[in-house]
Amino acid sequence: MRFELTKEFLEQIRKAIQQSDLDWIDKNVFELHYVDIAQILDELQNEEAKFIYFQLEEEVQADVLMELEEEVRDRFIKSLSKKEIAEQLENLDSDDAADILYELSDNEIHEVISHMEDDEAADDIVDLLNYDEDTAGGLMQKEFLFVQLHWKVGQALSEIREQAKDVEKVYTIYVVDSLNKLVGVLSLKALFFSDPDDFITDLYNGKNIISVKVTDEQEEVIRLFDKYGLVSIPVLDYQDKLVGRITIDDVVDIIREEADRDFQLATGISEKVEENASIFRISRARLPWLIIGMLGGTLGAKVISSFEGSISMIPALAFFIPMITAMGGNVGVQSSAIVVQSLAKGNQFKSVFAKLGKEVLVGLFNGLICSSLIFGIASVFGTIDLGIVVSLSLFVVIVFAAVMGTLIPLILDKYDIDPALATGPFITTLNDVLGLFIYFTIGMLIYS
Amino acid sequence: MRFELTKEFLEQIRKAIQQSDLDWIDKNVFELHYVDIAQILDELQNEEAKFIYFQLEEEVQADVLMELEEEVRDRFIKSLSKKEIAEQLENLDSDDAADILYELSDNEIHEVISHMEDDEAADDIVDLLNYDEDTAGGLMQKEFLFVQLHWKVGQALSEIREQAKDVEKVYTIYVVDSLNKLVGVLSLKALFFSDPDDFITDLYNGKNIISVKVTDEQEEVIRLFDKYGLVSIPVLDYQDKLVGRITIDDVVDIIREEADRDFQLATGISEKVEENASIFRISRARLPWLIIGMLGGTLGAKVISSFEGSISMIPALAFFIPMITAMGGNVGVQSSAIVVQSLAKGNQFKSVFAKLGKEVLVGLFNGLICSSLIFGIASVFGTIDLGIVVSLSLFVVIVFAAVMGTLIPLILDKYDIDPALATGPFITTLNDVLGLFIYFTIGMLIYS
Repeated sequence: MRFELTKEFLEQIRKAIQQSDLDWIDKNVFELHYVDIAQILDELQNEEAKFIYFQLEEEVQADVLMELEEEVRDRFIKSLSKKEIAEQLENLDSDDAADILYELSDNEIHEVISHMEDDEAADDIVDLLNYDEDTAGGLMQKEFLFVQLHWKVGQALSEIREQAKDVEKVYTIYVVDSLNKLVGVLSLKALFFSDPDDFITDLYNGKNIISVKVTDEQEEVIRLFDKYGLVSIPVLDYQDKLVGRITIDDVVDIIREEADRDFQLATGISEKVEENASIFRISRARLPWLIIGMLGGTLGAKVISSFEGSISMIPALAFFIPMITAMGGNVGVQSSAIVVQSLAKGNQFKSVFAKLGKEVLVGLFNGLICSSLIFGIASVFGTIDLGIVVSLSLFVVIVFAAVMGTLIPLILDKYDIDPALATGPFITTLNDVLGLFIYFTIGMLIYS
Repeated sequence: MRFELTKEFLEQIRKAIQQSDLDWIDKNVFELHYVDIAQILDELQNEEAKFIYFQLEEEVQADVLMELEEEVRDRFIKSLSKKEIAEQLENLDSDDAADILYELSDNEIHEVISHMEDDEAADDIVDLLNYDEDTAGGLMQKEFLFVQLHWKVGQALSEIREQAKDVEKVYTIYVVDSLNKLVGVLSLKALFFSDPDDFITDLYNGKNIISVKVTDEQEEVIRLFDKYGLVSIPVLDYQDKLVGRITIDDVVDIIREEADRDFQLATGISEKVEENASIFRISRARLPWLIIGMLGGTLGAKVISSFEGSISMIPALAFFIPMITAMGGNVGVQSSAIVVQSLAKGNQFKSVFAKLGKEVLVGLFNGLICSSLIFGIASVFGTIDLGIVVSLSLFVVIVFAAVMGTLIPLILDKYDIDPALATGPFITTLNDVLGLFIYFTIGMLIYS
């Protein structure tokens, strides 16, 4: 029952476009959900996509446009005349319209806006463009429902009826005073089930209203949605006047993107790449970490080479090099992952030292278990001496890695660098070099 | 303005509880948002938390209860009598009530249910307990708004008014036929602005309704919310009858949990642990991967020891061991991360071979660049021969790691094992051993 895009279906669509078979397209494409139509357009050539797009109803056009993949949408928009772009913007929510304009040059924006017929909508969009993309102002839309505190339900209903023409999704009705300052919220339910002569003052909820300022950072917006389980949040200007709202659908997208980015950083991919990006772009996203890893490896080679004498004398020392580096890396990444996740959730650490102390204890505990095991293995493998060197080094390396893994993301965060960077090859590489140094130093001490 | 829980404030609350200073608590605690109250209870002793909890209004109690940390809530519930639990359940949404009962034994559930006064609510909860926790049935709630297709707006309004007493958040009104089968949705907006004599048939939207079956897996539910940007989804039984709905707040929680879990798996943490879990529990969550890493390291030692002769002759070979293993690990994790993310988004690969081909090409490209660099470095470091051995091995290892990194998550996924497992130390360890084998084999061939 659910739509799945197949190669065969795509071929049929292509054929129908070539033959301008509108009947077939109408029956087979226009009947689909707009998300599925967007998915089809993503796969078509730009001219083919345009053909389908301009046959759609205006409302569906707006929905489809915002569902296109970013690259596809940018290409599509850039192939339109400024007048055509202006026409498309008229159908969009103000935040979506602003998102599209962000991709254009100042001159192009100016020209597009001048073609817009709805002056109020144009003003809203221009206003949104003033905010930084990563702030509440950059995320908000200008369309929302509000009532004035002194209104009766009857007036509120007729005013809202008017406002609702521009508001696609209704979550909450905001209540403002005569100066347009936010004083509370009104649930649709409350309004719905009241008498026209009831006063808003008696119905609204003015307690514990969660809101953000236009200048609040995106991370703070997400933290509040997350913490308070919100579906929308009102946005206030410097004077606490209500100027917009942010809805959960936009926030879910950002949560997804941030989780993806953390995951990619943790796995050594330095920039976001689309599934079907070119091989060159994928390579470029991964190369930086590989080269850092290589330089780290070179440093590691340098460390080992300075102990060349020891290796010549006891070649068995070389056997456990991969274990020492691997364990240092694993422990370091484990520790930093926990810290990064806590920081991402906006948890403030009671104290860096408490956190560090805990990680050191976990390190001591795991180090003890792992070293005991490896003492047995290495002794059987080589000599008791080798067992002592390997297990002692492993213990020190594990504790050391736990400390580094905890401290580095905390330090990065303090200097406003994304702490997720620390979970990537960065910490592994650093621990490799440190681990080798510890290992061979202990080896030299025991064997000499 | 925003509430931040401080140690001092917590101390004040504790003192107020000891002195049963309800005035102070009323002014300083009960005025807070329920999420913040829950956060306070999380930090209190169970008896202290109980004192506060039972002073709250019933509605707030329900909200606070569901916001408590899982461990705290379980402890709290277990300290209540069965009758008290039953009373709490009456105030909860059916899905939340079922979540709480999932933690109890069959006998306890039976006893709690027998204490419930609202038989209909009790039936709903018992019904929900029949579904697997990870399916749409296990996620849904029984409270939703619906109208019958043949009703007029007037009747719909009065019926919905009645239903709305049980429904906290109103998103969509579902439209069913006389057999209770879902035929469409009605926006609140449409209902809101219609005449009492209008027919639902003329107002509802019956096209492209996205729904799930009770038995659909949680992943499918998330995929649909994600793809179609939903805020709620209707849940149907085998006969397409409407039996419940799932709302976005529950789904956001799961998206977060899944992202966290993938991240933890990728960084070598095998089970979910809370921020303030005991040191023993944290250690236990991390040990499995460390021990796998150690066994891998032992295998690596075994591989190197079988080339002991080569190392004795050319100790410089040992210098580049960490680089070879590190690069194999990095490339493997990069490749598998991309595959895991695609799989998590429900993307179906056009073909395994296409994906593999692309990763191999990226591997060849990155391998070429990295090997050229390292040829220079290793040659300066040692001899041209060493440069050839290291760069050739690195090239083969990178391509090999790209292949393994792509294939392993795909294979795990095929056998219904979480592919995110592959991004952890698993793939690193495997690549370590393989890389060492490739490196020393090439070394032996070139030097002999």
